[in-house]
Amino acid sequence: LIGIFDSGLGGLTAVKQIRGLMPQEDLVYFGDTGRVPYGTKSRATIIQYAKQDVAFLQSKGVDAILVACGTVSTTALSVLQKQTKIPVVGVVEPACRAAVEATKSGSIAVLGTNATIRSGAFPDLLKDMQPSLRVYEQACPLFVPLVENGVTDKDDPIARLAVERYLNRFKDTDIDTVILGCTHYPLLSQVIADLLPGVTLINTGYEAAKVLCEGRSGNGTGTARYYVSDDPEMFIAAAGRFLGQDVKGQVSYVDIGAY
Amino acid sequence: LIGIFDSGLGGLTAVKQIRGLMPQEDLVYFGDTGRVPYGTKSRATIIQYAKQDVAFLQSKGVDAILVACGTVSTTALSVLQKQTKIPVVGVVEPACRAAVEATKSGSIAVLGTNATIRSGAFPDLLKDMQPSLRVYEQACPLFVPLVENGVTDKDDPIARLAVERYLNRFKDTDIDTVILGCTHYPLLSQVIADLLPGVTLINTGYEAAKVLCEGRSGNGTGTARYYVSDDPEMFIAAAGRFLGQDVKGQVSYVDIGAY
Repeated sequence: LIGIFDSGLGGLTAVKQIRGLMPQEDLVYFGDTGRVPYGTKSRATIIQYAKQDVAFLQSKGVDAILVACGTVSTTALSVLQKQTKIPVVGVVEPACRAAVEATKSGSIAVLGTNATIRSGAFPDLLKDMQPSLRVYEQACPLFVPLVENGVTDKDDPIARLAVERYLNRFKDTDIDTVILGCTHYPLLSQVIADLLPGVTLINTGYEAAKVLCEGRSGNGTGTARYYVSDDPEMFIAAAGRFLGQDVKGQVSYVDIGAY
Repeated sequence: LIGIFDSGLGGLTAVKQIRGLMPQEDLVYFGDTGRVPYGTKSRATIIQYAKQDVAFLQSKGVDAILVACGTVSTTALSVLQKQTKIPVVGVVEPACRAAVEATKSGSIAVLGTNATIRSGAFPDLLKDMQPSLRVYEQACPLFVPLVENGVTDKDDPIARLAVERYLNRFKDTDIDTVILGCTHYPLLSQVIADLLPGVTLINTGYEAAKVLCEGRSGNGTGTARYYVSDDPEMFIAAAGRFLGQDVKGQVSYVDIGAY
Protein backbone atom coordinates (compact mmCIF):
# COMPACT_ATOMS: atom_id res chain seq x y z
CA LEU A 1 0.00 0.00 0.00
CA ILE A 2 1.66 3.19 -1.27
CA GLY A 3 0.87 6.59 0.19
CA ILE A 4 1.16 9.70 -1.98
CA PHE A 5 0.62 13.27 -0.91
CA ASP A 6 0.67 16.74 -2.33
CA SER A 7 -0.49 20.20 -1.35
CA GLY A 8 -3.46 19.73 -3.66
CA LEU A 9 -4.18 18.18 -7.00
CA GLY A 10 -0.76 18.18 -8.69
CA GLY A 11 0.31 14.87 -7.16
CA LEU A 12 -2.38 13.13 -9.16
CA THR A 13 0.02 13.22 -12.10
CA ALA A 14 2.21 10.85 -10.03
CA VAL A 15 -0.78 8.66 -9.16
CA LYS A 16 -1.46 8.27 -12.86
CA GLN A 17 2.14 7.17 -13.49
CA ILE A 18 2.17 4.66 -10.62
CA ARG A 19 -1.11 3.25 -11.84
CA GLY A 20 0.41 2.82 -15.28
CA LEU A 21 3.59 1.18 -13.96
CA MET A 22 1.90 -1.04 -11.33
CA PRO A 23 -1.77 -1.56 -12.06
CA GLN A 24 -2.23 -3.93 -9.10
CA GLU A 25 -0.73 -1.70 -6.39
CA ASP A 26 -3.12 -0.24 -3.82
CA LEU A 27 -2.84 3.51 -3.32
CA VAL A 28 -3.83 6.10 -0.72
CA TYR A 29 -3.65 9.73 -1.81
CA PHE A 30 -3.84 12.79 0.41
CA GLY A 31 -4.32 16.26 -1.09
CA ASP A 32 -4.16 19.16 1.38
CA THR A 33 -6.81 21.15 -0.50
CA GLY A 34 -7.83 23.04 2.65
CA ARG A 35 -4.37 24.62 2.98
CA VAL A 36 -3.16 24.67 -0.64
CA PRO A 37 -0.83 26.13 -1.93
CA TYR A 38 2.37 25.29 -0.06
CA GLY A 39 4.81 26.93 -2.46
CA THR A 40 4.12 30.48 -1.28
CA LYS A 41 4.51 29.63 2.42
CA SER A 42 7.44 29.62 4.82
CA ARG A 43 9.82 26.74 5.48
CA ALA A 44 8.51 26.27 9.04
CA THR A 45 4.88 26.08 7.89
CA ILE A 46 5.71 23.71 5.02
CA ILE A 47 7.52 21.36 7.44
CA GLN A 48 4.64 21.47 9.95
CA TYR A 49 2.06 20.65 7.27
CA ALA A 50 4.18 17.91 5.67
CA LYS A 51 4.68 16.15 9.02
CA GLN A 52 0.92 16.05 9.49
CA ASP A 53 0.48 14.69 5.97
CA VAL A 54 2.94 11.86 6.66
CA ALA A 55 1.33 11.07 10.03
CA PHE A 56 -2.05 10.78 8.35
CA LEU A 57 -0.79 8.42 5.62
CA GLN A 58 0.96 6.27 8.23
CA SER A 59 -2.34 5.98 10.12
CA LYS A 60 -3.68 4.32 6.95
CA GLY A 61 -0.95 1.66 7.08
CA VAL A 62 1.09 2.63 4.02
CA ASP A 63 4.50 0.92 3.61
CA ALA A 64 6.08 3.61 1.44
CA ILE A 65 5.38 7.28 0.79
CA LEU A 66 5.82 9.34 -2.35
CA VAL A 67 6.17 13.06 -1.70
CA ALA A 68 4.69 14.23 -4.99
CA CYS A 69 4.94 17.89 -3.99
CA GLY A 70 8.05 19.66 -5.25
CA THR A 71 7.85 22.23 -2.48
CA VAL A 72 7.80 19.60 0.28
CA SER A 73 10.46 17.49 -1.46
CA THR A 74 12.87 20.41 -1.57
CA THR A 75 12.06 21.88 1.83
CA ALA A 76 11.13 19.07 4.24
CA LEU A 77 12.24 15.66 2.90
CA SER A 78 15.05 14.97 5.37
CA VAL A 79 12.78 15.92 8.29
CA LEU A 80 10.12 13.49 7.03
CA GLN A 81 12.65 10.68 6.53
CA LYS A 82 13.63 11.04 10.20
CA GLN A 83 9.96 10.96 11.25
CA THR A 84 9.28 7.44 9.94
CA LYS A 85 11.03 4.14 9.21
CA ILE A 86 9.25 3.43 5.94
CA PRO A 87 10.77 4.70 2.67
CA VAL A 88 9.92 8.31 1.84
CA VAL A 89 10.71 9.19 -1.78
CA GLY A 90 10.76 12.80 -2.95
CA VAL A 91 10.97 14.22 -6.44
CA VAL A 92 14.40 15.88 -6.24
CA GLU A 93 16.78 12.94 -6.61
CA PRO A 94 14.79 11.10 -9.30
CA ALA A 95 14.40 14.31 -11.31
CA CYS A 96 18.08 15.22 -10.99
CA ARG A 97 19.14 11.73 -12.15
CA ALA A 98 16.89 12.00 -15.17
CA ALA A 99 18.19 15.48 -15.97
CA VAL A 100 21.85 14.41 -15.74
CA GLU A 101 21.11 11.50 -18.07
CA ALA A 102 19.24 13.72 -20.51
CA THR A 103 21.56 16.71 -20.86
CA LYS A 104 24.19 16.77 -23.58
CA SER A 105 25.17 20.42 -23.23
CA GLY A 106 25.58 20.27 -19.45
CA SER A 107 23.23 23.24 -18.99
CA ILE A 108 20.05 22.58 -17.00
CA ALA A 109 17.24 24.90 -15.89
CA VAL A 110 15.13 24.26 -12.81
CA LEU A 111 11.62 25.73 -12.48
CA GLY A 112 9.74 25.72 -9.18
CA THR A 113 7.66 27.55 -6.61
CA ASN A 114 9.16 30.34 -4.52
CA ALA A 115 9.81 27.86 -1.69
CA THR A 116 11.50 25.34 -4.00
CA ILE A 117 13.83 27.90 -5.52
CA ARG A 118 14.57 29.38 -2.07
CA SER A 119 15.66 25.90 -0.88
CA GLY A 120 18.37 25.46 -3.50
CA ALA A 121 17.78 21.69 -3.31
CA PHE A 122 17.86 20.97 -7.06
CA PRO A 123 21.09 22.82 -7.92
CA ASP A 124 22.79 21.48 -4.79
CA LEU A 125 22.12 17.87 -5.77
CA LEU A 126 22.81 18.40 -9.48
CA LYS A 127 26.24 19.85 -8.68
CA ASP A 128 26.91 16.99 -6.25
CA MET A 129 26.14 14.53 -9.03
CA GLN A 130 28.17 16.35 -11.67
CA PRO A 131 30.16 19.39 -10.58
CA SER A 132 30.72 20.60 -14.14
CA LEU A 133 27.00 21.23 -14.76
CA ARG A 134 25.71 24.74 -15.28
CA VAL A 135 22.40 25.08 -13.42
CA TYR A 136 19.94 27.97 -13.77
CA GLU A 137 16.91 28.48 -11.53
CA GLN A 138 13.63 30.31 -12.00
CA ALA A 139 10.70 30.70 -9.61
CA CYS A 140 7.40 30.63 -11.52
CA PRO A 141 4.80 31.66 -8.91
CA LEU A 142 1.98 32.25 -11.42
CA PHE A 143 2.12 28.71 -12.86
CA VAL A 144 0.20 27.00 -10.02
CA PRO A 145 -2.78 29.40 -10.10
CA LEU A 146 -2.83 29.25 -13.91
CA VAL A 147 -2.96 25.44 -13.87
CA GLU A 148 -5.54 25.35 -11.07
CA ASN A 149 -7.74 27.68 -13.13
CA GLY A 150 -7.33 25.66 -16.32
CA VAL A 151 -5.29 28.36 -18.10
CA THR A 152 -2.94 25.86 -19.80
CA ASP A 153 -3.87 25.78 -23.48
CA LYS A 154 -0.88 26.45 -25.72
CA ASP A 155 -2.87 29.08 -27.61
CA ASP A 156 -3.98 30.87 -24.44
CA PRO A 157 -2.29 34.30 -24.48
CA ILE A 158 -2.14 34.54 -20.67
CA ALA A 159 -0.44 31.14 -20.41
CA ARG A 160 2.00 32.13 -23.18
CA LEU A 161 2.85 35.49 -21.62
CA ALA A 162 3.44 33.94 -18.19
CA VAL A 163 5.72 31.28 -19.68
CA GLU A 164 7.58 33.94 -21.66
CA ARG A 165 7.99 36.15 -18.59
CA TYR A 166 9.75 33.42 -16.65
CA LEU A 167 11.53 31.53 -19.43
CA ASN A 168 12.53 34.08 -22.09
CA ARG A 169 15.97 34.25 -20.47
CA PHE A 170 16.49 30.58 -21.37
CA LYS A 171 15.75 31.08 -25.09
CA ASP A 172 18.71 30.79 -27.47
CA THR A 173 20.99 29.43 -24.74
CA ASP A 174 22.61 26.00 -24.60
CA ILE A 175 20.13 24.79 -21.96
CA ASP A 176 18.78 21.50 -23.30
CA THR A 177 17.02 20.13 -20.20
CA VAL A 178 14.41 21.74 -17.94
CA ILE A 179 13.27 20.23 -14.64
CA LEU A 180 9.58 20.97 -14.05
CA GLY A 181 10.09 21.15 -10.29
CA CYS A 182 6.39 21.20 -9.36
CA THR A 183 3.79 18.59 -10.19
CA HIS A 184 1.48 21.25 -11.60
CA TYR A 185 3.89 22.32 -14.29
CA PRO A 186 3.54 19.36 -16.70
CA LEU A 187 0.10 20.72 -17.56
CA LEU A 188 1.94 23.69 -19.11
CA SER A 189 4.35 21.44 -21.04
CA GLN A 190 3.02 22.36 -24.46
CA VAL A 191 3.37 26.08 -23.83
CA ILE A 192 6.89 25.63 -22.46
CA ALA A 193 7.89 23.36 -25.35
CA ASP A 194 6.66 25.97 -27.84
CA LEU A 195 8.94 28.62 -26.31
CA LEU A 196 11.92 26.27 -25.86
CA PRO A 197 11.74 23.83 -28.77
CA GLY A 198 13.95 20.76 -28.62
CA VAL A 199 14.46 21.01 -24.86
CA THR A 200 13.86 17.90 -22.71
CA LEU A 201 11.24 18.54 -20.02
CA ILE A 202 11.67 16.44 -16.88
CA ASN A 203 8.34 15.47 -15.26
CA THR A 204 9.24 15.16 -11.59
CA GLY A 205 6.13 13.21 -10.59
CA TYR A 206 6.82 10.64 -13.29
CA GLU A 207 10.48 10.19 -12.39
CA ALA A 208 9.69 9.85 -8.68
CA ALA A 209 6.94 7.32 -9.41
CA LYS A 210 9.44 5.23 -11.42
CA VAL A 211 11.92 5.20 -8.53
CA LEU A 212 9.24 4.31 -6.01
CA CYS A 213 8.06 1.39 -8.16
CA GLU A 214 11.56 -0.09 -8.58
CA GLY A 215 11.84 -3.36 -6.68
CA ARG A 216 8.17 -3.47 -5.78
CA SER A 217 6.03 -6.33 -7.00
CA GLY A 218 2.83 -4.31 -7.03
CA ASN A 219 0.72 -6.95 -5.35
CA GLY A 220 -2.77 -5.83 -4.49
CA THR A 221 -6.10 -5.32 -6.12
CA GLY A 222 -5.50 -1.96 -7.76
CA THR A 223 -7.65 0.07 -5.39
CA ALA A 224 -7.23 3.80 -4.80
CA ARG A 225 -8.55 5.91 -1.93
CA TYR A 226 -8.35 9.70 -1.94
CA TYR A 227 -8.46 11.98 1.11
CA VAL A 228 -8.65 15.76 1.09
CA SER A 229 -8.78 18.52 3.70
CA ASP A 230 -11.48 20.50 1.90
CA ASP A 231 -14.75 19.52 0.23
CA PRO A 232 -14.47 16.13 -1.58
CA GLU A 233 -16.94 17.30 -4.24
CA MET A 234 -14.61 20.12 -5.33
CA PHE A 235 -11.74 17.62 -5.57
CA ILE A 236 -13.82 15.19 -7.63
CA ALA A 237 -14.76 17.96 -10.05
CA ALA A 238 -11.13 19.00 -10.64
CA ALA A 239 -9.34 15.63 -10.41
CA GLY A 240 -10.30 14.53 -13.89
CA ARG A 241 -8.04 17.17 -15.45
CA PHE A 242 -5.00 15.57 -13.80
CA LEU A 243 -6.00 11.92 -13.67
CA GLY A 244 -8.07 11.45 -16.80
CA GLN A 245 -10.64 9.42 -14.86
CA ASP A 246 -13.55 9.88 -12.47
CA VAL A 247 -12.87 9.35 -8.75
CA LYS A 248 -16.47 9.76 -7.54
CA GLY A 249 -17.19 7.60 -4.49
CA GLN A 250 -13.48 7.20 -3.66
CA VAL A 251 -12.87 10.57 -1.93
CA SER A 252 -13.23 11.37 1.79
CA TYR A 253 -12.67 14.45 3.96
CA VAL A 254 -9.97 14.39 6.65
CA ASP A 255 -9.35 16.98 9.39
CA ILE A 256 -5.59 17.16 8.78
CA GLY A 257 -4.98 19.68 11.56
CA ALA A 258 -5.71 16.88 14.05
CA TYR A 259 -2.68 14.79 12.93
CA LEU B 1 -9.87 48.14 20.19
CA ILE B 2 -10.96 47.08 16.70
CA GLY B 3 -10.18 43.64 15.28
CA ILE B 4 -9.75 43.17 11.54
CA PHE B 5 -9.13 39.92 9.74
CA ASP B 6 -8.60 38.63 6.24
CA SER B 7 -7.36 35.47 4.58
CA GLY B 8 -4.04 37.20 4.04
CA LEU B 9 -2.80 40.65 3.12
CA GLY B 10 -5.79 42.18 1.34
CA GLY B 11 -7.43 43.40 4.56
CA LEU B 12 -4.56 45.79 5.07
CA THR B 13 -6.31 48.11 2.60
CA ALA B 14 -9.06 48.39 5.25
CA VAL B 15 -6.51 48.95 8.02
CA LYS B 16 -5.13 51.87 6.04
CA GLN B 17 -8.61 53.40 5.72
CA ILE B 18 -9.43 52.98 9.42
CA ARG B 19 -6.11 54.53 10.32
CA GLY B 20 -6.94 57.48 8.10
CA LEU B 21 -10.45 57.91 9.52
CA MET B 22 -9.54 57.31 13.19
CA PRO B 23 -5.83 57.88 13.84
CA GLN B 24 -6.22 57.25 17.60
CA GLU B 25 -8.03 53.91 17.42
CA ASP B 26 -6.09 50.81 18.50
CA LEU B 27 -6.13 47.95 16.01
CA VAL B 28 -5.45 44.22 16.00
CA TYR B 29 -5.10 42.59 12.59
CA PHE B 30 -5.09 38.88 11.83
CA GLY B 31 -4.02 37.58 8.40
CA ASP B 32 -4.42 33.83 7.86
CA THR B 33 -1.28 33.63 5.73
CA GLY B 34 -0.76 29.96 6.58
CA ARG B 35 -4.07 28.96 4.94
CA VAL B 36 -4.50 31.70 2.31
CA PRO B 37 -6.38 31.85 -0.08
CA TYR B 38 -9.96 31.35 1.13
CA GLY B 39 -11.71 32.21 -2.14
CA THR B 40 -10.97 28.89 -3.83
CA LYS B 41 -12.15 26.80 -0.88
CA SER B 42 -15.50 25.32 0.10
CA ARG B 43 -18.21 26.99 2.16
CA ALA B 44 -17.70 24.59 5.09
CA THR B 45 -13.95 25.23 5.20
CA ILE B 46 -14.38 29.01 4.91
CA ILE B 47 -16.84 28.98 7.84
CA GLN B 48 -14.54 26.81 9.97
CA TYR B 49 -11.54 29.09 9.35
CA ALA B 50 -13.54 32.31 9.88
CA LYS B 51 -14.86 31.08 13.24
CA GLN B 52 -11.29 30.46 14.39
CA ASP B 53 -10.27 33.92 13.17
CA VAL B 54 -13.05 35.55 15.21
CA ALA B 55 -12.25 33.46 18.30
CA PHE B 56 -8.63 34.58 18.10
CA LEU B 57 -9.51 38.28 17.81
CA GLN B 58 -11.92 37.98 20.74
CA SER B 59 -9.13 36.51 22.82
CA LYS B 60 -7.32 39.80 22.26
CA GLY B 61 -10.23 41.76 23.75
CA VAL B 62 -11.53 43.55 20.65
CA ASP B 63 -14.92 45.29 20.96
CA ALA B 64 -15.78 45.22 17.24
CA ILE B 65 -14.65 43.16 14.27
CA LEU B 66 -14.26 44.11 10.64
CA VAL B 67 -14.40 41.15 8.25
CA ALA B 68 -12.21 42.64 5.55
CA CYS B 69 -12.32 39.45 3.47
CA GLY B 70 -14.95 39.47 0.72
CA THR B 71 -15.08 35.68 0.68
CA VAL B 72 -15.82 35.44 4.43
CA SER B 73 -18.25 38.38 4.31
CA THR B 74 -20.33 36.70 1.60
CA THR B 75 -20.09 33.14 2.90
CA ALA B 76 -19.91 33.20 6.71
CA LEU B 77 -21.03 36.58 8.11
CA SER B 78 -24.33 35.49 9.67
CA VAL B 79 -22.61 32.51 11.31
CA LEU B 80 -19.99 34.84 12.81
CA GLN B 81 -22.60 37.32 14.04
CA LYS B 82 -24.27 34.48 15.97
CA GLN B 83 -20.91 33.43 17.44
CA THR B 84 -20.30 36.69 19.31
CA LYS B 85 -22.15 39.61 20.91
CA ILE B 86 -19.80 42.33 19.67
CA PRO B 87 -20.52 44.00 16.31
CA VAL B 88 -19.19 42.11 13.29
CA VAL B 89 -19.16 44.23 10.14
CA GLY B 90 -18.64 42.67 6.73
CA VAL B 91 -18.04 44.28 3.36
CA VAL B 92 -21.27 43.33 1.60
CA GLU B 93 -23.78 45.79 3.02
CA PRO B 94 -21.46 48.83 3.02
CA ALA B 95 -20.39 48.10 -0.56
CA CYS B 96 -23.96 47.60 -1.75
CA ARG B 97 -25.08 50.87 -0.16
CA ALA B 98 -22.25 52.72 -1.88
CA ALA B 99 -23.06 51.07 -5.21
CA VAL B 100 -26.75 51.93 -5.01
CA GLU B 101 -25.82 55.55 -4.25
CA ALA B 102 -23.32 55.66 -7.09
CA THR B 103 -25.25 54.12 -9.97
CA LYS B 104 -27.26 56.30 -12.30
CA SER B 105 -27.97 53.68 -14.96
CA GLY B 106 -29.15 51.05 -12.46
CA SER B 107 -26.68 48.48 -13.88
CA ILE B 108 -24.04 47.19 -11.46
CA ALA B 109 -21.33 44.56 -11.88
CA VAL B 110 -19.93 42.53 -8.99
CA LEU B 111 -16.45 40.99 -9.14
CA GLY B 112 -15.28 38.40 -6.62
CA THR B 113 -13.61 35.11 -5.87
CA ASN B 114 -15.25 31.83 -6.84
CA ALA B 115 -16.68 31.49 -3.33
CA THR B 116 -18.07 35.04 -3.31
CA ILE B 117 -19.82 34.64 -6.65
CA ARG B 118 -21.11 31.18 -5.64
CA SER B 119 -22.71 32.76 -2.54
CA GLY B 120 -24.86 35.23 -4.46
CA ALA B 121 -24.66 37.58 -1.46
CA PHE B 122 -24.04 40.80 -3.36
CA PRO B 123 -26.86 40.49 -5.94
CA ASP B 124 -29.26 39.24 -3.26
CA LEU B 125 -28.73 42.34 -1.12
CA LEU B 126 -28.60 44.78 -4.06
CA LYS B 127 -31.98 43.52 -5.29
CA ASP B 128 -33.39 43.73 -1.75
CA MET B 129 -32.27 47.34 -1.59
CA GLN B 130 -33.57 48.25 -5.04
CA PRO B 131 -35.48 45.58 -6.96
CA SER B 132 -35.21 47.42 -10.28
CA LEU B 133 -31.39 47.11 -10.40
CA ARG B 134 -29.72 44.98 -13.07
CA VAL B 135 -26.84 43.09 -11.43
CA TYR B 136 -24.12 41.18 -13.27
CA GLU B 137 -21.56 38.93 -11.58
CA GLN B 138 -18.11 37.73 -12.59
CA ALA B 139 -15.70 35.44 -10.74
CA CYS B 140 -12.09 36.59 -11.27
CA PRO B 141 -9.99 33.74 -9.80
CA LEU B 142 -6.69 34.93 -11.29
CA PHE B 143 -6.86 38.38 -9.66
CA VAL B 144 -5.69 37.29 -6.18
CA PRO B 145 -2.55 35.46 -7.40
CA LEU B 146 -1.75 38.35 -9.76
CA VAL B 147 -1.97 40.87 -6.89
CA GLU B 148 -0.02 38.65 -4.51
CA ASN B 149 2.75 38.40 -7.10
CA GLY B 150 2.80 42.13 -7.79
CA VAL B 151 1.40 41.81 -11.34
CA THR B 152 -0.76 44.93 -11.09
CA ASP B 153 0.88 47.61 -13.23
CA LYS B 154 -1.54 49.07 -15.78
CA ASP B 155 1.00 48.49 -18.52
CA ASP B 156 1.62 44.86 -17.55
CA PRO B 157 0.29 42.72 -20.44
CA ILE B 158 -0.60 39.79 -18.16
CA ALA B 159 -2.63 42.04 -15.86
CA ARG B 160 -4.35 43.63 -18.87
CA LEU B 161 -5.20 40.28 -20.48
CA ALA B 162 -6.61 38.89 -17.24
CA VAL B 163 -8.76 41.96 -16.71
CA GLU B 164 -9.94 41.79 -20.32
CA ARG B 165 -10.77 38.09 -20.03
CA TYR B 166 -13.12 38.67 -17.12
CA LEU B 167 -14.46 42.14 -17.91
CA ASN B 168 -14.69 42.46 -21.70
CA ARG B 169 -18.35 41.48 -21.46
CA PHE B 170 -19.00 44.66 -19.46
CA LYS B 171 -17.50 46.98 -22.11
CA ASP B 172 -19.93 49.16 -24.03
CA THR B 173 -22.81 48.30 -21.70
CA ASP B 174 -24.72 50.67 -19.43
CA ILE B 175 -22.93 49.33 -16.33
CA ASP B 176 -21.63 52.42 -14.51
CA THR B 177 -20.66 50.90 -11.12
CA VAL B 178 -18.42 47.93 -10.33
CA ILE B 179 -18.11 46.44 -6.84
CA LEU B 180 -14.56 45.17 -6.27
CA GLY B 181 -15.79 42.35 -4.04
CA CYS B 182 -12.38 41.29 -2.74
CA THR B 183 -9.89 43.43 -0.82
CA HIS B 184 -7.12 42.44 -3.24
CA TYR B 185 -8.84 43.92 -6.26
CA PRO B 186 -8.28 47.65 -5.60
CA LEU B 187 -4.63 47.05 -6.46
CA LEU B 188 -5.85 46.34 -10.02
CA SER B 189 -8.02 49.49 -10.12
CA GLN B 190 -5.95 51.25 -12.74
CA VAL B 191 -6.10 48.31 -15.14
CA ILE B 192 -9.85 47.92 -14.61
CA ALA B 193 -10.43 51.66 -15.04
CA ASP B 194 -8.51 51.60 -18.32
CA LEU B 195 -10.81 48.90 -19.71
CA LEU B 196 -14.01 50.43 -18.30
CA PRO B 197 -13.45 54.20 -18.38
CA GLY B 198 -15.90 56.36 -16.45
CA VAL B 199 -17.14 53.49 -14.29
CA THR B 200 -17.25 53.96 -10.50
CA LEU B 201 -15.19 51.32 -8.70
CA ILE B 202 -16.42 50.49 -5.19
CA ASN B 203 -13.59 49.65 -2.77
CA THR B 204 -15.23 47.26 -0.32
CA GLY B 205 -12.57 47.56 2.38
CA TYR B 206 -12.92 51.34 2.36
CA GLU B 207 -16.72 51.30 2.55
CA ALA B 208 -16.72 48.75 5.37
CA ALA B 209 -14.13 50.75 7.30
CA LYS B 210 -16.32 53.86 7.02
CA VAL B 211 -19.34 51.98 8.43
CA LEU B 212 -17.29 50.49 11.27
CA CYS B 213 -15.98 53.92 12.23
CA GLU B 214 -19.43 55.54 12.35
CA GLY B 215 -20.38 56.36 15.93
CA ARG B 216 -16.97 55.45 17.34
CA SER B 217 -14.89 58.09 19.07
CA GLY B 218 -11.58 56.45 18.21
CA ASN B 219 -10.13 56.80 21.67
CA GLY B 220 -6.79 55.10 22.10
CA THR B 221 -3.16 55.64 21.34
CA GLY B 222 -3.13 54.65 17.69
CA THR B 223 -1.32 51.34 18.16
CA ALA B 224 -1.53 48.43 15.72
CA ARG B 225 -0.62 44.79 16.31
CA TYR B 226 -0.50 42.27 13.49
CA TYR B 227 -0.82 38.49 13.82
CA VAL B 228 -0.29 35.94 11.07
CA SER B 229 -0.45 32.15 10.78
CA ASP B 230 2.74 31.90 8.68
CA ASP B 231 6.18 33.48 8.99
CA PRO B 232 5.96 37.12 10.23
CA GLU B 233 9.02 38.04 8.15
CA MET B 234 7.22 37.16 4.90
CA PHE B 235 4.24 39.28 6.00
CA ILE B 236 6.47 42.22 6.86
CA ALA B 237 8.12 42.06 3.44
CA ALA B 238 4.80 42.11 1.57
CA ALA B 239 2.71 44.38 3.82
CA GLY B 240 4.25 47.59 2.56
CA ARG B 241 2.59 47.14 -0.84
CA PHE B 242 -0.85 47.31 0.79
CA LEU B 243 -0.21 49.57 3.74
CA GLY B 244 2.39 52.00 2.49
CA GLN B 245 4.34 51.71 5.74
CA ASP B 246 6.73 49.38 7.54
CA VAL B 247 5.27 47.08 10.22
CA LYS B 248 8.55 45.60 11.43
CA GLY B 249 8.46 44.75 15.14
CA GLN B 250 4.64 44.74 15.23
CA VAL B 251 3.98 41.27 13.77
CA SER B 252 3.64 37.97 15.66
CA TYR B 253 2.95 34.35 14.72
CA VAL B 254 -0.24 32.67 15.95
CA ASP B 255 -1.18 28.96 15.70
CA ILE B 256 -4.70 29.64 14.42
CA GLY B 257 -5.65 25.95 14.26
CA ALA B 258 -5.68 25.95 18.08
CA TYR B 259 -8.60 28.46 18.27
